[in-house]
Amino acid sequence: MTDQKTDQIDAVLNHVDAGLNQSLERLYALLRIKSISTDPAYKAECQRAADWIVGELQGIGFDATAHATPGHPVVWAKGPEQAGPHVLFYAHYDVQPVDPLNLWHSDPFEPVLKQDAAGRQIIVARGASDDKGQMLTFIEACRAWQAVTGSLPVKVSLMLEGEEESGGKNLPPFMEANKVALGAADIALVCDTDMWDRETPSITTMLRGMVAEEVEITCADKDLHSGMFGNAARNPNQLLAEIIASLRAPDGSVTLPGFYDDVAEVSPEIKAQWAGLGFDDAEFLGEAGLSIPAGEKNRSVLEMLWARPTCEINGMIGGYTGDGFKTVIPAKASAKISFRLVSNMDPVKIRAAFRAHVEAMIPADCSVRFTAHGGSPAITVPSDGTHLKRALTGLSNEWGKPAVITGSGGSIPVAGDFKRILGLDTLLIGFAQIDDAIHSPNEKYDLASYHRGIRSWVRVLASLAG
Amino acid sequence: MTDQKTDQIDAVLNHVDAGLNQSLERLYALLRIKSISTDPAYKAECQRAADWIVGELQGIGFDATAHATPGHPVVWAKGPEQAGPHVLFYAHYDVQPVDPLNLWHSDPFEPVLKQDAAGRQIIVARGASDDKGQMLTFIEACRAWQAVTGSLPVKVSLMLEGEEESGGKNLPPFMEANKVALGAADIALVCDTDMWDRETPSITTMLRGMVAEEVEITCADKDLHSGMFGNAARNPNQLLAEIIASLRAPDGSVTLPGFYDDVAEVSPEIKAQWAGLGFDDAEFLGEAGLSIPAGEKNRSVLEMLWARPTCEINGMIGGYTGDGFKTVIPAKASAKISFRLVSNMDPVKIRAAFRAHVEAMIPADCSVRFTAHGGSPAITVPSDGTHLKRALTGLSNEWGKPAVITGSGGSIPVAGDFKRILGLDTLLIGFAQIDDAIHSPNEKYDLASYHRGIRSWVRVLASLAG
Repeated sequence: MTDQKTDQIDAVLNHVDAGLNQSLERLYALLRIKSISTDPAYKAECQRAADWIVGELQGIGFDATAHATPGHPVVWAKGPEQAGPHVLFYAHYDVQPVDPLNLWHSDPFEPVLKQDAAGRQIIVARGASDDKGQMLTFIEACRAWQAVTGSLPVKVSLMLEGEEESGGKNLPPFMEANKVALGAADIALVCDTDMWDRETPSITTMLRGMVAEEVEITCADKDLHSGMFGNAARNPNQLLAEIIASLRAPDGSVTLPGFYDDVAEVSPEIKAQWAGLGFDDAEFLGEAGLSIPAGEKNRSVLEMLWARPTCEINGMIGGYTGDGFKTVIPAKASAKISFRLVSNMDPVKIRAAFRAHVEAMIPADCSVRFTAHGGSPAITVPSDGTHLKRALTGLSNEWGKPAVITGSGGSIPVAGDFKRILGLDTLLIGFAQIDDAIHSPNEKYDLASYHRGIRSWVRVLASLAG
Repeated sequence: MTDQKTDQIDAVLNHVDAGLNQSLERLYALLRIKSISTDPAYKAECQRAADWIVGELQGIGFDATAHATPGHPVVWAKGPEQAGPHVLFYAHYDVQPVDPLNLWHSDPFEPVLKQDAAGRQIIVARGASDDKGQMLTFIEACRAWQAVTGSLPVKVSLMLEGEEESGGKNLPPFMEANKVALGAADIALVCDTDMWDRETPSITTMLRGMVAEEVEITCADKDLHSGMFGNAARNPNQLLAEIIASLRAPDGSVTLPGFYDDVAEVSPEIKAQWAGLGFDDAEFLGEAGLSIPAGEKNRSVLEMLWARPTCEINGMIGGYTGDGFKTVIPAKASAKISFRLVSNMDPVKIRAAFRAHVEAMIPADCSVRFTAHGGSPAITVPSDGTHLKRALTGLSNEWGKPAVITGSGGSIPVAGDFKRILGLDTLLIGFAQIDDAIHSPNEKYDLASYHRGIRSWVRVLASLAG
């Protein structure tokens, strides 16, 4: 790297440091918008979030538009022409619901900066980490480059989604419709993952896929009195519980026929690399107040999270669940169930196996209704590409230690879509921490994640230029 | 029976017929009071219901008072002195919650008189059948006797409860505290059961008992992202489902150790009597839109309902249950579970067996919390007493065919308390129909149940006098 280039980067980094308070104010403004995508009541708020982002991007030289979809808008922004690689940045502006609200210590949509028990400054709000804070690390880095140099080190486009937390049905058609223009990029960048630990940046190259299903069982045609009908009328709560219990064998494996057929064993090389990460099962589970691994016997926790599929009951409800007691046999019971996929597992095949398994357990006088909530295969990013190597260098420079390559238990379907629709590989670079409580009450983002995330992108953009 | 007495009964019955509209207006007034006992939000409404009843009873010559308890009031009313037996009448003025509200075709607390599909007049409202309508059949019969003859055929006391639908914790202490005065009665009358069918009155002599438990399982100390933690962190939904599923064996029997130890087999005599009732399994299940009996294999439906214990999951909830999908592993999941008891099953023993069974399934890093929601043993009324025979005669006279002796799958704990605390046997006489949808949306009481219920009590009071 030339001295001139180094000086330039330092100037941009200094600008980031000096402007941190203003960067924070902009994040707060976005966090105050209640963009819960899964709940139709917040549709206008999602539009408001998209419009806010468009305004910010236009303010720093992007040609930005909020494109309407049958769901929430997709923000697409094109930066000035520039030599070198063209990067397409992705993040999402929608957030998860906030219930149970009573467990929040402050209003989820009124961000507060406070100290955690370890004395770290944290930003508390729904979306602080997932994914508004992460999204703004990139936008603020672009802002700093523009402010100091009047340009960006590489050509940058952004595609920002508002349905990541609710199935993301409308993004793939948008990508299909704009395939040529979007596919003109050389590499996709996604900021929706976490660091290896507070000192070690990472790029994620393995992501689990997902199949999400809602299942509703109907037995009687009305609620029944459990005294009058109990023991003779089928209870859908009991039936649903039996179905859920049947999904796991005593050894913790998932029982669906063919479930593991397309699951590749992790190679000895990758196992060795993971062993070197010093992952501590007890510490990981301890973050959640647990100490005994659930799931498959004889698999390490890291392997279960990154390289093994799972079946999780995300929600279930049936009968009377209010205060007190009601001796009812309900007519219906339902559950939301998701499968995380790895390797070459086929979402279509897994969904079909699940439905067949459930249908076989439904008595002839009862019925079941399935609702699909999206499905995506797992993806793996080749670990020897030029862009990946350059991005690792940028990150390592910022953090003063080598960035590591990791897997992730979560699903980021867009990475699969980038490959399938646009032919692009994706670099997953994020600054979240394991204790950010994303999807939970009191979600937070470390102020350090935000600040050094911005600084990291300043450097990664420079290193990607070559 | 003397001609004079027959004439007197006819005069009272004519008075009932002529005053039916006014009787109905009084029922409507009571049905409009939202006395949902299980929900603390309706505490004042429960008091209002008690006060309304006190006013009515005072108006027809009773010395009536609403006695405060730590929960809802107990109405205790003493009628004028009279020769012959002293009867203690029991019913309850509280009602079940009304959810799911969207399934009601009219306001649950604004009674409407309408025709059902079979052309029968029905009164639709929460509590129309269970138990306000039933309660007023007795009070209106007393009113008619007083209006026509200025007295009652027997000495009558009433004890009317406001916590039958919510555990009834405060009635036994009230009975203990007033043991001598209440125990001065010769027989208890309870109006909270149904007729055998629309033409056949019945007196119930076997009632199942109940143990109700709420169980809450806690795994992680916060909600987790199912992608980040799935397959490694224990999911309380899965665990709860496994626990519920484990409560039933493949043959439909309940698996708790010792569960059937104190269950007596039904005698051949009673089995023969039940066989003569012409109970139709298909018709019974068909009322609920079902056709295949659940529960124990090789037991008739009637036997399962009246003479076999059961375990029912009345409610369960965990995780995200709103619109859309949320990939969460919740911290907690909970269920409301009730056991119906028969013969000599001991509620204390059954509760302990359940808790031990659940506790044995909880991993060491998870926890469980139990909440007891009341328990009562099953009761059996001797079928050869004078009062029972007299009451059967009164009912048979009204309906023009022999009244039958039946069992009931439901629990009426007060009948056990009458025996245990006051030493009284109980005659369970009611006019509800199997399709009344008690505890469900669109609860109704046949106008015929109300009208002929009043007439029935007119005759039963006369026949009890001997």
